[in-house]
Amino acid sequence: MRAGPSQEEIRRHNLGALLRHVHLSGPTSRAELTSRMGLNRSTIMALTADLTAAGLVREELPRETGRAGRPSLVVRPESARVYVFALDVGVDRLVAARVGLGGTVLDRREAVRRRGPFSLEEVVGPLAGFARQMHRKTRPDTVCVGVAAAFSGGVAREDGVVRFGPNMGAADVPFGEEMSRRLGLGLPVAVGNDANLAAMAEHLRGVGVGCRDLVYLHGDVGVGGGVIAGGALLGGHQGFGGEVGHMVVNPGGRPCGCGSHGCLEAEVGERALLEAAGRFGSQIGREAVRAVVGAADRGDIVAQAALNRVGDWLGLGVANLVNVFNPELVVFGGMLREVYLGAAAQVRSRLTVDALGPAREHLRLRTSALGDDATLVGAAELAFAQVLADPLEVLTRAGS
Amino acid sequence: MRAGPSQEEIRRHNLGALLRHVHLSGPTSRAELTSRMGLNRSTIMALTADLTAAGLVREELPRETGRAGRPSLVVRPESARVYVFALDVGVDRLVAARVGLGGTVLDRREAVRRRGPFSLEEVVGPLAGFARQMHRKTRPDTVCVGVAAAFSGGVAREDGVVRFGPNMGAADVPFGEEMSRRLGLGLPVAVGNDANLAAMAEHLRGVGVGCRDLVYLHGDVGVGGGVIAGGALLGGHQGFGGEVGHMVVNPGGRPCGCGSHGCLEAEVGERALLEAAGRFGSQIGREAVRAVVGAADRGDIVAQAALNRVGDWLGLGVANLVNVFNPELVVFGGMLREVYLGAAAQVRSRLTVDALGPAREHLRLRTSALGDDATLVGAAELAFAQVLADPLEVLTRAGS
Repeated sequence: MRAGPSQEEIRRHNLGALLRHVHLSGPTSRAELTSRMGLNRSTIMALTADLTAAGLVREELPRETGRAGRPSLVVRPESARVYVFALDVGVDRLVAARVGLGGTVLDRREAVRRRGPFSLEEVVGPLAGFARQMHRKTRPDTVCVGVAAAFSGGVAREDGVVRFGPNMGAADVPFGEEMSRRLGLGLPVAVGNDANLAAMAEHLRGVGVGCRDLVYLHGDVGVGGGVIAGGALLGGHQGFGGEVGHMVVNPGGRPCGCGSHGCLEAEVGERALLEAAGRFGSQIGREAVRAVVGAADRGDIVAQAALNRVGDWLGLGVANLVNVFNPELVVFGGMLREVYLGAAAQVRSRLTVDALGPAREHLRLRTSALGDDATLVGAAELAFAQVLADPLEVLTRAGS
Repeated sequence: MRAGPSQEEIRRHNLGALLRHVHLSGPTSRAELTSRMGLNRSTIMALTADLTAAGLVREELPRETGRAGRPSLVVRPESARVYVFALDVGVDRLVAARVGLGGTVLDRREAVRRRGPFSLEEVVGPLAGFARQMHRKTRPDTVCVGVAAAFSGGVAREDGVVRFGPNMGAADVPFGEEMSRRLGLGLPVAVGNDANLAAMAEHLRGVGVGCRDLVYLHGDVGVGGGVIAGGALLGGHQGFGGEVGHMVVNPGGRPCGCGSHGCLEAEVGERALLEAAGRFGSQIGREAVRAVVGAADRGDIVAQAALNRVGDWLGLGVANLVNVFNPELVVFGGMLREVYLGAAAQVRSRLTVDALGPAREHLRLRTSALGDDATLVGAAELAFAQVLADPLEVLTRAGS
């Protein structure tokens, strides 16, 4: 039980809501903000004035209105001035980007990561280097308001420690703490599971905009997931929610990195596809997956059979998730994007058999709109979360 | 994007929060309400005065304080005056109860339902009769503030229609509308899936109090589920969320009423257990399930094997749900209570193999605290939802 908010809390909420709107929707006229937020003009003016004074937004005359009369000023996020660092630790790559308020990627660096034994240094070292390079290039009047990372593994909400990441070889890694120390920006590094953050990114800026119930499936070496339920990310008790890749779909099936057998990951991940196609070992990664889909498309019957097999298990997994979550949308990202495009008929046929009719009648299946950058975009949104929750407070701490 | 609440919305929120507190926690002193709600004494006094004037609560001197000085008045829900009708439509029984504010069952009627073809009349008729009998016995100063029903089937959020209920033989049944017409109280009848409502009941008044992430599994002829994620019931896009009984755990396994094979329901429901024990046909229902568990307990090897088989699939289903939801608590209700008690070792052993270590390290497995009345208690809470959201408005409409 909690009492209603105080005047101060309402003001903070409204500042955050206005800033979030221009951050996600781009430059917006005062008139539109007034109608969208259901507040009167003078309140919008006061909120905008506070955000302008803090250097978070600026007001401009619109380019062309095409209408007579005084045009409504447009409120624009200070994308070049206020930014975050977004990091992405994947099995095959490391990415760091400087992302401006409003979601503009201002600068980015990327390195290929060799699959092999995990060490904190091989990940933290290059990322810290990238961030330093980008930081050096910023103008003195810019301000970094947050840092966050997407990590291919299970991240505990309580302390941000990566508790498991079988495909990275990571376990109990205090990645955020070490990353923060190495960056030396005096900012904590928030860490999230990559598929969870990608789900949030598709929900906020991708194919899932306006959709309150979606399941995002991310294929990489492993298969991860992120669930938006009733508009919020499903985190679970400790933050490990959404590990749909470890739902057993084929008891006694292929061995999985988690120690079990027949997990969705074991049946539809990269290795399952490449082995079924008789191509495991010669090539790995996204290119190898694309090669199988391409071969199937050209009539290669071994590749077709492999894709059918994997598509069938993927369809069963999706059917289970449809029954459990009743989503409006299922999004396929990472290598599952290619698998779905190559085996959509198989996936849909399984859905018809195994998903409850009423739960699938309004269901849409789509591929990721943000592609491989969904995880990075999600990390940027995580990094912006604090400034959007309490714009003036965060900026004061950032020393603007 | 939504602006912060108005003064009127805050007052409504606070009235609801205070009423919800005494409804769920029972009589509470003004002093405790002050500290729990973080509001000052005069605000609590004003809120209590409004609720008292509306006849929703009354203030009394506490019985014994054991302390010197003026005792703080105790705020108590008007349980005898303000009530709802809660209905439960199960495969084997029909229940109607009159439940007072605060959750007290004031009166109840129950009838055995024969399994067989479904008709709206065989369900609505007896329930309307029960409600009329109970209504006739109420004092003239009492007021009914809501009616709700738990139904063993999938209920669309949009219109309250029961879209599917394979074990009832129900499909596209406008149960709420017809029930409301037959009751003739001038009140709509809210309808919810039985397992969803039972999950909510265990969360609010049962074994899941204080737990924000739980999965409730309800076994009957079918297997239903309800998920509380981040403190809220998982409804999904249309309200069909939580149908975990139709998660396929054994592809190509036993046929299920939904048309698929190897659903959790098909592998661990009543029929699966009785058939495995060689007892299907002679007896049905809860007594038959208890007989198998009892026989296993006395060393009957056929019953033991049946229980092990069912416990194994149940464990796999729970492991999948643990990976997907990372709950703090899994609750076994209905006939799954007996199955779990008889096969806990099997369930736990499967969990150890198939659930991710970090996701299960804080997991608790428990049986339902509310027993077979969890669905009915959940229906009562659904019926009270409106008066708790807007206490004065609902009472005005109820014509008090």
